Amino acid sequence: MAPQLDSYFKQVDDLSDHFIERLRKAVAIPSVSAEDDRRPEVIRMGKFLASELKALGADVELRELGKQPHKEHLDLPPVVVARYGSDKSKRTILVYGHYDVQPALKDDGWATEPFDLTVDDKGRMYGRGSTDDKGPVLGWLNAIEAHQKAGIDFPVNLLMCFEGMEEYGSEGLDDFINEEAKKYFKDADAVCISDNYWLGTEKPCLTYGLRGCNYYSLEISGPGQDLHSGVFGGTAHEPMTDLMRVMSTLVAPDGKILIDGINELVAPMTDDEKSLYGDIAFTMDNLYESLGSTSGIYDNKEQTLMARWRYPSLSLHGVEGAFSAPGAKTVIPAKVIGKFSIRIVPDMEIEDVNKLVFAHVDKAFAALGSKNTCKCTLQHAGKWWVASPKHWNFTAAGKAVEHVWGVKPDLTREGGSIPVTLTFEQATGKNVLLLPMGSSTDAAHSINEKLDKRNYIEGIKLLGTYLHYVAEEPMKEE
Amino acid sequence: MAPQLDSYFKQVDDLSDHFIERLRKAVAIPSVSAEDDRRPEVIRMGKFLASELKALGADVELRELGKQPHKEHLDLPPVVVARYGSDKSKRTILVYGHYDVQPALKDDGWATEPFDLTVDDKGRMYGRGSTDDKGPVLGWLNAIEAHQKAGIDFPVNLLMCFEGMEEYGSEGLDDFINEEAKKYFKDADAVCISDNYWLGTEKPCLTYGLRGCNYYSLEISGPGQDLHSGVFGGTAHEPMTDLMRVMSTLVAPDGKILIDGINELVAPMTDDEKSLYGDIAFTMDNLYESLGSTSGIYDNKEQTLMARWRYPSLSLHGVEGAFSAPGAKTVIPAKVIGKFSIRIVPDMEIEDVNKLVFAHVDKAFAALGSKNTCKCTLQHAGKWWVASPKHWNFTAAGKAVEHVWGVKPDLTREGGSIPVTLTFEQATGKNVLLLPMGSSTDAAHSINEKLDKRNYIEGIKLLGTYLHYVAEEPMKEE
Ligand SMILES: [Zn+2]
Ligand SMILES: [Zn+2]
Ligand SMILES: [Zn+2]
Ligand SMILES: [Zn+2]
Repeated sequence: MAPQLDSYFKQVDDLSDHFIERLRKAVAIPSVSAEDDRRPEVIRMGKFLASELKALGADVELRELGKQPHKEHLDLPPVVVARYGSDKSKRTILVYGHYDVQPALKDDGWATEPFDLTVDDKGRMYGRGSTDDKGPVLGWLNAIEAHQKAGIDFPVNLLMCFEGMEEYGSEGLDDFINEEAKKYFKDADAVCISDNYWLGTEKPCLTYGLRGCNYYSLEISGPGQDLHSGVFGGTAHEPMTDLMRVMSTLVAPDGKILIDGINELVAPMTDDEKSLYGDIAFTMDNLYESLGSTSGIYDNKEQTLMARWRYPSLSLHGVEGAFSAPGAKTVIPAKVIGKFSIRIVPDMEIEDVNKLVFAHVDKAFAALGSKNTCKCTLQHAGKWWVASPKHWNFTAAGKAVEHVWGVKPDLTREGGSIPVTLTFEQATGKNVLLLPMGSSTDAAHSINEKLDKRNYIEGIKLLGTYLHYVAEEPMKEE
Repeated sequence: MAPQLDSYFKQVDDLSDHFIERLRKAVAIPSVSAEDDRRPEVIRMGKFLASELKALGADVELRELGKQPHKEHLDLPPVVVARYGSDKSKRTILVYGHYDVQPALKDDGWATEPFDLTVDDKGRMYGRGSTDDKGPVLGWLNAIEAHQKAGIDFPVNLLMCFEGMEEYGSEGLDDFINEEAKKYFKDADAVCISDNYWLGTEKPCLTYGLRGCNYYSLEISGPGQDLHSGVFGGTAHEPMTDLMRVMSTLVAPDGKILIDGINELVAPMTDDEKSLYGDIAFTMDNLYESLGSTSGIYDNKEQTLMARWRYPSLSLHGVEGAFSAPGAKTVIPAKVIGKFSIRIVPDMEIEDVNKLVFAHVDKAFAALGSKNTCKCTLQHAGKWWVASPKHWNFTAAGKAVEHVWGVKPDLTREGGSIPVTLTFEQATGKNVLLLPMGSSTDAAHSINEKLDKRNYIEGIKLLGTYLHYVAEEPMKEE
């Protein structure tokens, strides 16, 4: 039997101005984690969040993470952890979000003041952090408040974990989560993260997979110092010549990875999985709009989404050490470092990929017969993440979407990574659900970031509704 | 009959402290043409030179070149033109040099103050501009003074052209030379430029050839803006993938240019030319020392020098628009511009090379089947220059070297370009000789630039001796 939520929904609607006001207060605090001199603002934002939670009756703690590595004069902002409810008969849901934001300057091209929430006549609420991730974080608080004002029992115990360094690499968070998994977070039955976006603008989605990423440096060196091409051109092995050659053996213009053995590591497509792609609300025009061009590799939705979500890709990002400015410089760079990365997917293990990459590079370089020196190293790696979309955590969320929006959600994956997802899954051993609030046009890390009022208000309804469904979903995984 | 120069040589030796003092005064003026706020120092240096010339009895003019293009608040430094002697019965020799210098900061790693000439116990005179090009420029003045003090008749009429913008592209000079070729410079019978270096450290050389340079931009673009490789990797044609592919088709790791038809444009080697290479004072160790490594392509002197001087080469300089900083960034650059250049040699015409390059790039890009856009353009071009080393101007200089140094000079070419050489040749229609003063270890554009006292003092003797020989050399070209 569907939960009776009409009075909750009415409260959310009645409180919508108040909720927007709360978002306005949060956006007004420029909690930019990447800017040293705004660190006090990040900390102020953590305290604001804590005081709002306390006012709602939650138990709140500010957990310090110590000094920032390599910047020992800077305190890391605290992790705000909170518990709302501790009824042993209820399920416990752990939610994560972040209260820091990307940098923003009006001069970057914003149409409005970035830290002044500005609502236009189409209900678009512009402001840094509106959609990433202050709107979703406040969504949980607003859901609690609307339950209180509606006089409805809160359906679960809610554990909250809000960090202040997400946009700067979540410094210190992994250790914290691993440490607290069997302490503060020990009661969690499932995890929900609202920090990604709908695939489009009209249809909500649940996200069950992310690609990982292995990032490599390919260094080729020879001469003792940069040379002048007039004096040395034609007489010495040039590192750039070798680098271009080796880099061009890694991937074909149509995106096919040319490293022996890589594609064989990829989990085969099942009919079951294939069937998920047809219904996804996505068109080639969506791709072209976001690309800003029609230079897509595939001419159909299914292959495009598969290439983004479930197949690996290899991108050549750039070259360090070569001439990179406008104009003309006749330098022969002595040492150049090519940067490339591979987005990895099930069942590619990080170490297996490394072995194949290093073997390929060694072979390709040896074939050049160059007297230069070649060295390929892994800069960083992050594993892929795929959850079962048939887990009760997802089933509950799917029903909640239908209840609030009247449509079945798209089941999506993403091509990028949200590393904290895997950390929570591995540390708690519980299912993790990504339940986005914003839409694809929100411009999270760009100028004119916004959250549509509809996504915010209906999103608050959805978060509350999800908690009702997840409270009563049979605890079985199909 | 060899000129009697003993009293001249004795004066040069006796005046050597005075000549070093003159160089010290010149080095002390930081005439850095690339730095806007040092422009007054460049102008001060021009005036210093003019007053020294006047004191020696030369007719001197400071010719203004107007405002600096794109920097209309800056006056270009004047060209110092001067005439010493106007005896119709004598030959007239036009000499060129520059009185501006490269930037230099003690903090760049100089062992001494760069604008404070410092002579060490091995007679190395450290200071910015010591060898490039204040030492050689003052060499002409010193030669005049030593003739006066020795009471020897000056053997030629000397026309001088000293500019103040050489290290910043000789702004305005080409027009000036073309304009004055039939005016101020109209009497010139031959031209001599002292602004390059010996091939090694022990043996003087005369330089009769320079390679030209065609510099290209290869732009590949697709997406409307930079993309995130997580979101778009595998779904869109990536400009970097295409660029690495096309660039890697231009040149082989062993330096062979792979553009159809390019190598066929090169003038064939004659036996006569080949015979010049054996005697050149150059060893593979010289190459390895200057390379800072043993990553040379050839294992013998002859092929190495031919590759540097008389064959074309193609260097890949870098990529604009891609990720070029240290660290890891998962960007798919939307527009990347590869930079490469071809050092051109006889008989490669600039336009013919362009046609072959553009055709090659078009074909290589078409073969990729990419939906991106490719555009190759010439950024700038400079023709090669080769003079006849059997011209009387060279014969005279060769005899002068034997007279002063007791050895026949190496006849060398250079792999780089000195564009003013060709300008003088074309504007005056006269033979141009490059007669270097400094040696290969002088570090002209680097930290710790120096000129050996021996090269300076014997160099002054050589410049004067050259003028005596060139005055009496039969005016025939073999
Ligand atoms: Zn976020
Ligand atoms: Zn973000
Ligand atoms: Zn110079
Ligand atoms: Zn120079």
